[in-house]
Amino acid sequence: MIILKVGGGKGINWDYIAEDLARVKEHVVVVHGANAWMGEIAEKLGAPERTITSPSGHVSRYTDARAMEVLTMVYSGLINKKIVACLQRHGINAIGLSGADGRIWLGKRKDHILSQEGNKVKVVSDSATGVVESVNAALLRQLVGAGYTPVLTVPAITHSGELINVDNDRAAAVMAKDLKAETIVMLFEAPGLLADLADEGSLVHEVAGMQLDAYLEKVQGRMKKKLLGAREALSFGVEKIYFGDGRLPQPLSSVLAGNGTLLKP
Amino acid sequence: MIILKVGGGKGINWDYIAEDLARVKEHVVVVHGANAWMGEIAEKLGAPERTITSPSGHVSRYTDARAMEVLTMVYSGLINKKIVACLQRHGINAIGLSGADGRIWLGKRKDHILSQEGNKVKVVSDSATGVVESVNAALLRQLVGAGYTPVLTVPAITHSGELINVDNDRAAAVMAKDLKAETIVMLFEAPGLLADLADEGSLVHEVAGMQLDAYLEKVQGRMKKKLLGAREALSFGVEKIYFGDGRLPQPLSSVLAGNGTLLKP
Repeated sequence: MIILKVGGGKGINWDYIAEDLARVKEHVVVVHGANAWMGEIAEKLGAPERTITSPSGHVSRYTDARAMEVLTMVYSGLINKKIVACLQRHGINAIGLSGADGRIWLGKRKDHILSQEGNKVKVVSDSATGVVESVNAALLRQLVGAGYTPVLTVPAITHSGELINVDNDRAAAVMAKDLKAETIVMLFEAPGLLADLADEGSLVHEVAGMQLDAYLEKVQGRMKKKLLGAREALSFGVEKIYFGDGRLPQPLSSVLAGNGTLLKP
Repeated sequence: MIILKVGGGKGINWDYIAEDLARVKEHVVVVHGANAWMGEIAEKLGAPERTITSPSGHVSRYTDARAMEVLTMVYSGLINKKIVACLQRHGINAIGLSGADGRIWLGKRKDHILSQEGNKVKVVSDSATGVVESVNAALLRQLVGAGYTPVLTVPAITHSGELINVDNDRAAAVMAKDLKAETIVMLFEAPGLLADLADEGSLVHEVAGMQLDAYLEKVQGRMKKKLLGAREALSFGVEKIYFGDGRLPQPLSSVLAGNGTLLKP
């Protein structure tokens, strides 16, 4: 089984991904983002996006009640169903689900988050942010076994039934663990991990073992989250993690054939 | 099996519905609306709601591409996941799905809709409106058999993978047929079918056979759609259709016990 995580950029070509998925023999579970659509819609709905920067410099979405509503609309509504329809047009019987459905992504809410604001550290307690602790692998296996391609995204849900925002990359890692998937493919708007972010020619072909930590020191933002997700997945025993370009034809086959970055233990 | 259709009004009490569902022994498939949330959100997103009135006086949503986006966000995103979280809080393992997921509601798009505008009849061809023709009963049975409560809403999907808006009440009828459900319960913001819309005391306790057509002549708007859905379901062989109040405690048990309107062949 392959866990295919696709980024939420507007340059991602879902037709290419769907064409490729229709050819792949292995079972695939898809996870997607929708970040590029959030800003404008959140603004229009009067709940502009906000972020929290932790004292260690980690940036996360400030998910208060209104932001959670917008996130649910955009991720599990608009973009999830657009992707489902695209896959269906290519003959893939996709089934779109949030992590809350069937408790597929069951997690824990963080009590509070520390926010660095100038010289002060504030405690934020109204951000519904958390981590996925377990996956409803039985349901996913049942769906995949019956010929469906699950298409997952946030929100996840807590034991007490609260919707929470989680990092999709790390959720993919936990899913790979619980589904015993050997391979994770992460597609986004770059050829893979770049040694120099400004230079698409600086592709890193392979990252093994401790090299990953060195790259984690160097990168920021979304790539940092992807590397953190990858590190977590490797620690869970996932054997191969591929980073590759979601803008080009045959993105999945291409990355599996070596045109991207391979991260391994 | 019971098909439970719940209206999209803000007065519906989902905690009451969830408490009641947690007690019911029979398998239940839920269908919901979200109409009351559409107006404000559509307005803010710059795509205010529009309707089409057919020459025969039938009013439907004008679902152009932007309206479909808003509908997908509100119905299959915001409200579907709120309901799923509410049911989960009451111990029901709900799984929220649009009709597009797994082609649960597979339908046909209307080529065009006739719109009465003053003395003129116009042809509207950019409204993605249609009807559900078949239901993926195998998937729903698989989920219900594994202990999940499916929670369904629009959009549906066509054979060519286009998202379409359909009438949730009629989709419930087709679902009852394909799942061989004997009972449909429709909950909304009234005690049931009222002889006089302005008088909540004018509850009609039973409607049998041809009486339904007489009521169809008298009512308008949403109640007309519910009656059309009920008539279709009866023609499919559904034995009992209950209309009842979704605002009160134990709404499902209460309506099954006779506190509402029973429609039968």
